[in-house]
Amino acid sequence: MTAICDVQSLKNEKGFSLTRVGVVGVRKIIQVGKPESEEKSVPMICSIDAYVDLPADQKGSHMSRNLEVIDEVVDGCDDKPLVGIESVAVAMGKTLLDKHSYALVSNVSIEAEYFKESVTPRGRRTTEVCKLIGKSKCTRGGKIVKTLGVQVTGMTACPCAQENAARILGCSKKWPTITHNQRNTCTVVMELGEGVEVRADDLIDLVNDCYSSPTFGILKRDDEAIVVINAHNNPKFVEDVVREVLRKIVELYTYMPDDIVVTVRSESEESIHKHNAFAERIAMMGELRSRL
Amino acid sequence: MTAICDVQSLKNEKGFSLTRVGVVGVRKIIQVGKPESEEKSVPMICSIDAYVDLPADQKGSHMSRNLEVIDEVVDGCDDKPLVGIESVAVAMGKTLLDKHSYALVSNVSIEAEYFKESVTPRGRRTTEVCKLIGKSKCTRGGKIVKTLGVQVTGMTACPCAQENAARILGCSKKWPTITHNQRNTCTVVMELGEGVEVRADDLIDLVNDCYSSPTFGILKRDDEAIVVINAHNNPKFVEDVVREVLRKIVELYTYMPDDIVVTVRSESEESIHKHNAFAERIAMMGELRSRL
Amino acid sequence: MTAICDVQSLKNEKGFSLTRVGVVGVRKIIQVGKPESEEKSVPMICSIDAYVDLPADQKGSHMSRNLEVIDEVVDGCDDKPLVGIESVAVAMGKTLLDKHSYALVSNVSIEAEYFKESVTPRGRRTTEVCKLIGKSKCTRGGKIVKTLGVQVTGMTACPCAQENAARILGCSKKWPTITHNQRNTCTVVMELGEGVEVRADDLIDLVNDCYSSPTFGILKRDDEAIVVINAHNNPKFVEDVVREVLRKIVELYTYMPDDIVVTVRSESEESIHKHNAFAERIAMMGELRSRL
Amino acid sequence: MTAICDVQSLKNEKGFSLTRVGVVGVRKIIQVGKPESEEKSVPMICSIDAYVDLPADQKGSHMSRNLEVIDEVVDGCDDKPLVGIESVAVAMGKTLLDKHSYALVSNVSIEAEYFKESVTPRGRRTTEVCKLIGKSKCTRGGKIVKTLGVQVTGMTACPCAQENAARILGCSKKWPTITHNQRNTCTVVMELGEGVEVRADDLIDLVNDCYSSPTFGILKRDDEAIVVINAHNNPKFVEDVVREVLRKIVELYTYMPDDIVVTVRSESEESIHKHNAFAERIAMMGELRSRL
Repeated sequence: MTAICDVQSLKNEKGFSLTRVGVVGVRKIIQVGKPESEEKSVPMICSIDAYVDLPADQKGSHMSRNLEVIDEVVDGCDDKPLVGIESVAVAMGKTLLDKHSYALVSNVSIEAEYFKESVTPRGRRTTEVCKLIGKSKCTRGGKIVKTLGVQVTGMTACPCAQENAARILGCSKKWPTITHNQRNTCTVVMELGEGVEVRADDLIDLVNDCYSSPTFGILKRDDEAIVVINAHNNPKFVEDVVREVLRKIVELYTYMPDDIVVTVRSESEESIHKHNAFAERIAMMGELRSRL
Repeated sequence: MTAICDVQSLKNEKGFSLTRVGVVGVRKIIQVGKPESEEKSVPMICSIDAYVDLPADQKGSHMSRNLEVIDEVVDGCDDKPLVGIESVAVAMGKTLLDKHSYALVSNVSIEAEYFKESVTPRGRRTTEVCKLIGKSKCTRGGKIVKTLGVQVTGMTACPCAQENAARILGCSKKWPTITHNQRNTCTVVMELGEGVEVRADDLIDLVNDCYSSPTFGILKRDDEAIVVINAHNNPKFVEDVVREVLRKIVELYTYMPDDIVVTVRSESEESIHKHNAFAERIAMMGELRSRL
Repeated sequence: MTAICDVQSLKNEKGFSLTRVGVVGVRKIIQVGKPESEEKSVPMICSIDAYVDLPADQKGSHMSRNLEVIDEVVDGCDDKPLVGIESVAVAMGKTLLDKHSYALVSNVSIEAEYFKESVTPRGRRTTEVCKLIGKSKCTRGGKIVKTLGVQVTGMTACPCAQENAARILGCSKKWPTITHNQRNTCTVVMELGEGVEVRADDLIDLVNDCYSSPTFGILKRDDEAIVVINAHNNPKFVEDVVREVLRKIVELYTYMPDDIVVTVRSESEESIHKHNAFAERIAMMGELRSRL
Repeated sequence: MTAICDVQSLKNEKGFSLTRVGVVGVRKIIQVGKPESEEKSVPMICSIDAYVDLPADQKGSHMSRNLEVIDEVVDGCDDKPLVGIESVAVAMGKTLLDKHSYALVSNVSIEAEYFKESVTPRGRRTTEVCKLIGKSKCTRGGKIVKTLGVQVTGMTACPCAQENAARILGCSKKWPTITHNQRNTCTVVMELGEGVEVRADDLIDLVNDCYSSPTFGILKRDDEAIVVINAHNNPKFVEDVVREVLRKIVELYTYMPDDIVVTVRSESEESIHKHNAFAERIAMMGELRSRL
């Protein structure tokens, strides 16, 4: 057999470097460790994107190496799980730079469903699904940006319709007034330096505390009524959800440096409309602390 | 150039006929006529699936003919729009049998978004989006089953949580009590014979009348409060939506034969849960009329 | 607190029974056992739909019971995993009938990603993702239909374009001729009686053998070239994939009764088109055996 | 009736301004004008997101105004269509600032399918679907960034597998060698100043010229073979597609200022893998011109 040709390493004449070249939508089951947890690790089904940059003079990126890197880290987690999918993303990002000697930057993004224990108002134990996002951006020379995100579904009840329904109906203040309520998905993403740690479980709890009410898989009749009452005693716009999450982040993460970028996003599947309502803040911790 | 080979017409040795062979996800913009309407026709962006059966002894189906059939009917609609996407599906289905001499059955399915005029409680004119479904199944020999479906999004307010919140709160009956409410999508599909006509607009109106409230693109504050009040004065389970649609169908379509198959489905994006609630009835008109 | 009201059990006046009422899109992580496997069980992230019918005179179905049933079976699998997600569906379906005394039929559907060991042509070990489908339909009185399905992605190379490119180019028969090739997803679903067992791993292997070539996560250059050569030496229409799967099913499952319903479906993401090609056969084993 | 309360205008105590607040997923049918075209305008079904920022001291954004703004511009297009969906986005963005006196920035994003005439290698006329993206970012004080994007699906044939299959097979250079090929989606987005005009049709043609071959809805056998031959004579990595698009953009848009941001992205649904390959460049025109 003639020697196999490394077409990717051929010289490129077109003269453009590329920002990100790689693979997207790689599905893997990964054992992910949990910080200070009785369970040593949990299996997560992950969707992984992994890229490196490409210099102007090289024809192609060796993408099969990205799959080898992913498998190497996944196999390593079977033996010794890394804590948090953001750490898995960092491990993959570092190894990508090792394997692609021509690359200066690697980017890895991992998404996975996560099942977290919860308790209903009447004390019933449930397991609620949410989404985790882990990312890394590694630069040759050693700079690492590690990103952790959570996406949590809860419930919002509209303060505006509540106020105006009360006025039209002439409602007594004795009981909470009717309003439209709906599923809301809130996403929090924090771009951390390598040394800064955030527990996904804390972020999920924090978001659930900012809804009109968290939502639950099983609600027997009394629990269901209490969730409804709680939500109506605690009406929230999408704007309120985002601001409340921001406030709690500032309060909870006092140890974080000012240059950490925080994105908080709330999207509400309005029951009275066919479209969604949306609010977002993107800011650095320092800006949030000084209420800029 | 050597003669092109018709590989599809080669003899097949494997000995299995196929139920449906064809193309799926063909996107086309089609001018669709409206019955008794001032507007002669409206443009619809359609996703089309088109199949014929394949005899056991033939290697392949000539799928490019399906695309030619689709284009021929689409071009014909530019000159003389057919009334209803179900009629477009029938025209494609008939032509498929003409072009595939070996086929005994054709199946065509078309889906499109449809924008329908509506009016809010306070009289504001809006345009609301819903989905139309048109299908045909044509059999060589002339039998045609034409199917029309609509998918409409509205709002349901839960009767169970409402009753129990009232009991827990000790609410006065003077005002409607709080409950969870949410987006609901109701789908009605009717398998008609060729001669039976149903207007999509009638079906959409019928479904909107079965919700706790229809929903609207623009709701200024007073309209918003009235939609919320209406919904809470009219609580509905997914089961209620399906049964109410069935009742209205029986009342409205007295002229229809007993053997028409009706599917009614309601799916509710429960605001208090992360999963959906669902109800469905599949039955013949005759069964529905005798409440079987 | 006043007694909670069972609104669902109220008498319904509308007079329509419902075919299926329940919950859809419930996400759970389930430990699923493997038949004759060294691994005792694997965790699968499942999307579950669970329904029962509803009599004409009852207002609503008690949907929270469906969630309790799901959790009960999921918890049971932690202790003693059931073999195959179709067995999990049967366990849920039976328990649904226990918990809903008014129901005559339950339906459960579970879908999950599954990671299966594979080997490239040059012997490299990989893990390939596919989808499993498990269903049950349980009737009061004891009849159970258990359904197992697999969805596998592979590769097809078109025989027609290959033949005609060869003619236009005047190609030598020495080397395989060029043609368009693409991702193809083949779905096989078998409605089994309760006693009939099928191993998902066998069905997945069977489908992979019917492609122009299976596909792999990691292909270094020599493996990649061999996959391409294999695919071009083995061109397949979507029709060929379906017929080949049917033929292998008839050969492999000689022990199955004639009344088992088999659905085989192949969808090809045509590289030369923006739409997909599709072929399907739905038939009973008896029909397939007699080549009807 | 008591006066309706403007809850959104209430003073907010939480002290965080919000970056973007608004509505997402609004569906509308819009008449969009075409530059220098015989057709005056074409109907497009659009998905619209429309946001403004929110000051720290205001409780909520008046989102129903966003819907009024959308309807006002959509209605205006019925009378006098704007040229390009990016111009529709600008009109909406300007009106958003008029209606939200407290906002400093508006953001609008519109996506729509677009059907463009094309011609197969053998001269057959077809209509091919692609996607248009129009955006605006308007700042109080008058700065406007208008963005036009196109997303086009074509076909890539892999140069690496082709070279190595040729070596393994010992192929003659007389005929193009086999390789894997697949659907590829290329997205080009250009952030333009208000005065800079780009025709979507030109961008779509430009992308189609950078594929191994464009793809077509109808290909009779001779056309199909020629498309396959063309693709194999013109193999392209995802990296090649991006670089070729960049080169053509630099050549074609010589009149554009250096500070225009260009994003080019190519994603390939690899026929030999279950994951996709991806390449992207984000750069300013000035960087691209100097090959940085």
